[in-house]
Amino acid sequence: MRNIALKLMYNGTAYHGWQVQKNAVSVCGTLEKALTEITGERVHLTGCGRTDAGVHAEAYVANFRTASRIPLERLPFAINTHTPEDIAVGEAMEVAEDFNAIGSCLKKEYTYRIYNSRVKNPFYVNRAYFYPKRLDEAYLNRAAHMFVGTHDFAAVRSVGTQTKTTVRTIYWCDVSRSGELLELRVCANGFLYNMVRAITGTVLYAAEGKFRPEDIPAILESGDRTAAGPTVPPGGLYLTRLWYEDERLNG
Amino acid sequence: MRNIALKLMYNGTAYHGWQVQKNAVSVCGTLEKALTEITGERVHLTGCGRTDAGVHAEAYVANFRTASRIPLERLPFAINTHTPEDIAVGEAMEVAEDFNAIGSCLKKEYTYRIYNSRVKNPFYVNRAYFYPKRLDEAYLNRAAHMFVGTHDFAAVRSVGTQTKTTVRTIYWCDVSRSGELLELRVCANGFLYNMVRAITGTVLYAAEGKFRPEDIPAILESGDRTAAGPTVPPGGLYLTRLWYEDERLNG
Repeated sequence: MRNIALKLMYNGTAYHGWQVQKNAVSVCGTLEKALTEITGERVHLTGCGRTDAGVHAEAYVANFRTASRIPLERLPFAINTHTPEDIAVGEAMEVAEDFNAIGSCLKKEYTYRIYNSRVKNPFYVNRAYFYPKRLDEAYLNRAAHMFVGTHDFAAVRSVGTQTKTTVRTIYWCDVSRSGELLELRVCANGFLYNMVRAITGTVLYAAEGKFRPEDIPAILESGDRTAAGPTVPPGGLYLTRLWYEDERLNG
Repeated sequence: MRNIALKLMYNGTAYHGWQVQKNAVSVCGTLEKALTEITGERVHLTGCGRTDAGVHAEAYVANFRTASRIPLERLPFAINTHTPEDIAVGEAMEVAEDFNAIGSCLKKEYTYRIYNSRVKNPFYVNRAYFYPKRLDEAYLNRAAHMFVGTHDFAAVRSVGTQTKTTVRTIYWCDVSRSGELLELRVCANGFLYNMVRAITGTVLYAAEGKFRPEDIPAILESGDRTAAGPTVPPGGLYLTRLWYEDERLNG
């Protein structure tokens, strides 16, 4: 059996997230169906993370085991002809036998995009969170920096998935502006359920004066979800970078 | 009667173009319906150009006459609450009695976007023309420059709309690259039906070696539509800038 990793991208608007669910169209399910048609085997795909309904991926890695002999260089094209245009596989490569897209992932970066303009932009519908009141990116950045480090992030996650520990390490958490688009980029060794969306909501709460950036460490320490800001909508969230020991998979 | 101009944007993917048509959803028809609901009058809207099905506008101006006393500053919000998210009105202003969004327009710029990468990008579906073979933007630019000036553009228009003359003046026609995105920007005093899409197709034909950039003047002179390149798909086309004597409308 070969262990094959796929590098792909998807626009998550039309999907109920990565993970296969009953009675809902998922990115994983759509790809597994295509791979089953191509290989003639029942394929099980392991993704690098469970992105939620409406969340996007500019970088994503998934792996599966197969006895099929289809040449690797033909696989992306074959998959893309079997899947809708909102999923695109760029590369397929054979990886180590024990490689696992989620277990082998060293760190990930998510980006949350905010369209900060007085008027809605039709080109950002489902792609950035529309926030009409002018935001000061330097102030947002100060609040975002408060999340950097090894902390218990229970205050900024939604309950719903089981996890051994809610301690994670955030390597960076920055806000930058390019015209009317703000980006909050968070890189960590792992993410809890809805963590980036709750961090963004908390940073926006600071911008709204609901608390100061300096209050964020105490909010984290409290472990109290209701003390932090709200979970902002999924359309602004993108998985943007991945790091593996096998550097061919980084992107 | 006040003469009111609206500055707006739209994602044209879901529409059969600007112009009202029987049994098809148009941008103009959608806005007229909203304005009728708001003013209680039967509103007739004049647009700055007849963008085709699937074509977008990052800048667009339309005007209408009304006896309604709704304050101008409230109008954009009122319209936006009556229209889908893919249309957004940014500003409403009173204009001169004889102002006409198309007749008063001095010049317009259209941008055609090409996503030039080996692999499709799910975020450019219906927003840029996917062209997988590597393009040399300097060579494309050379071909694009051949269209600048006052010429008869009959060779790069589709027949279908009546026009007194097929002579227009192109002020600039440039190709630039930003990463995997190529942009062809054309500014003219007026455009014929499908003209930008045929110019882009002709520039791409030159890139494919079907003729040289230097052959383009003779193709234009021939007036023969079949001598030029094909009409590329609508999703890559955006109306991007407008110029009026009333500079408040420029954008």
